Amino acid sequence: MSVELVDVAGLDLEAEADRVSARIDDFFTSLLQPPGDSRDQLYAAMRHAAIGGGKRLRPLLTLAAARLFGIDEDQALRIAAAIEAIHVYSLIHDDLPSMDDDDLRRGKPTVHKAFSEATAVLAGDSLHALAFEILAHEATHRDPHVRSELVLELSRASGPNGMAGGQMMDLAAEGQPLDLDAVTRLQQLKTGALIEYAVEAPCIVTRLARDARTPYRGYARNIGLAFQITDDLIDFAGDEAAAGKRTGKDAGKGKATFVSLVGPDRARQQARVLVEQAIDHLSDHGEEADMLRAIARFAIERDR
Amino acid sequence: MSVELVDVAGLDLEAEADRVSARIDDFFTSLLQPPGDSRDQLYAAMRHAAIGGGKRLRPLLTLAAARLFGIDEDQALRIAAAIEAIHVYSLIHDDLPSMDDDDLRRGKPTVHKAFSEATAVLAGDSLHALAFEILAHEATHRDPHVRSELVLELSRASGPNGMAGGQMMDLAAEGQPLDLDAVTRLQQLKTGALIEYAVEAPCIVTRLARDARTPYRGYARNIGLAFQITDDLIDFAGDEAAAGKRTGKDAGKGKATFVSLVGPDRARQQARVLVEQAIDHLSDHGEEADMLRAIARFAIERDR
Repeated sequence: MSVELVDVAGLDLEAEADRVSARIDDFFTSLLQPPGDSRDQLYAAMRHAAIGGGKRLRPLLTLAAARLFGIDEDQALRIAAAIEAIHVYSLIHDDLPSMDDDDLRRGKPTVHKAFSEATAVLAGDSLHALAFEILAHEATHRDPHVRSELVLELSRASGPNGMAGGQMMDLAAEGQPLDLDAVTRLQQLKTGALIEYAVEAPCIVTRLARDARTPYRGYARNIGLAFQITDDLIDFAGDEAAAGKRTGKDAGKGKATFVSLVGPDRARQQARVLVEQAIDHLSDHGEEADMLRAIARFAIERDR
Repeated sequence: MSVELVDVAGLDLEAEADRVSARIDDFFTSLLQPPGDSRDQLYAAMRHAAIGGGKRLRPLLTLAAARLFGIDEDQALRIAAAIEAIHVYSLIHDDLPSMDDDDLRRGKPTVHKAFSEATAVLAGDSLHALAFEILAHEATHRDPHVRSELVLELSRASGPNGMAGGQMMDLAAEGQPLDLDAVTRLQQLKTGALIEYAVEAPCIVTRLARDARTPYRGYARNIGLAFQITDDLIDFAGDEAAAGKRTGKDAGKGKATFVSLVGPDRARQQARVLVEQAIDHLSDHGEEADMLRAIARFAIERDR
């Protein structure tokens, strides 16, 4: 691929990310209208967390994968919003004092800081339920088989054998550093399962047989890991730049990361290999897959 | 209805409640097998909360309503387990220190006491996801339209316009006593919506049109309120019996209840009327509705 194409794809990606973010914001703004009773604070907390923040990586992936199959963007957007609702709920709960105890998220106070801990628990629970309400609604797809399978796979990706299970592994790992296999497995559950679902969901909509989904899931698995390694590298570099020897957030908690286990150079190389493999999975596709290719490259080219 | 019939139904109910409890326990025992990795504590926490406790009112209602339409009990049991998973997740989160801060539940330490607060958050989240995984699975019903509608209505009953919204209203009401309309509305969301779903779900399975579900939803709404009023009466009486003038758990938090608003005598009378109305909703049915009638009477005849 020529340098020009890479540049063009890079430019497209930024504009596309902004466009998708705006559409997701619009969706949540309309979904989360305050009901005008004592639940208004709950709705305000959901809006605080769900609107106007984040890279919107998962919605971007879903809309980019939907292009492969010519899926109507309004339908894909509902699915993307359901996935983002799950992601946002998990951030709200992960930030709680009893979990990662974070005060800031995307430059804003976390929900339990801006509102209260109880409101944060309920805002997360509410977004969790809303994700399934969005998917099961007829507006998402006229075929109930598609809706039902979308629900089934999202519940798997977010439950104890997916995201929630990975978060438990992460908590259990504090002070008990893991080996590379264990870190890979943890990340595949904690963040990989939902990223994989973001790409698999359009395959479900287009009723692709399970076998035929393999390359798309492979793409998603590869870039999920590449994103995670890059996150670890940014965390590591941020600390190097900081004064003195202060270790990073992960190292401070005694958590093993890809970088702590193999060092920054091998980690960077591994991320590059993963992105190449991800792009290889798309070799049957022409330019309709360019956005997915651009996202793959972005996984390792970003610095925040 | 003769005294004999009431007695027989009463005896049946106790045996049936034990049988349903055992089946729900078996279901969760099989579903929540520990995976043999660092998520074992998460699974232990889910088992702690989900197995061996509670009245299993919602599963009992679902199986009793399933009898009206001759629905296969194994299918009804999966739906009942999904509803109970939602109920148990809500109890785990409601018991958290930032919410109702309860140390004991059904005579056992609450999940955050027996494990940790972080584990309790994740165990609740995991059961929440599993509920939708159970419903969306083909084993629940071969017709994807039924599965999809089961998911849609459960997500509504448990989300911000159902259970989670009602819990938010309840938190907002502390120190700001509500009037009778507001308490009724709060309870309809907090506990009523899921009880209504427990009875409506078999109507969905049997593909009853929305209009034709009205009497069953009416039955459920009436007994939901009757159960709540009886809970309030038990809370109130427990305190009267206690030494001195100590107010009950609800009064101590400055919460208005049916009893605090209209007094115990009118509350008791209102609960009786609700049970009569509930039973009236079943007038088109013969003995296949006897279990639902027995549950309605149990709503006000229990003392715990």
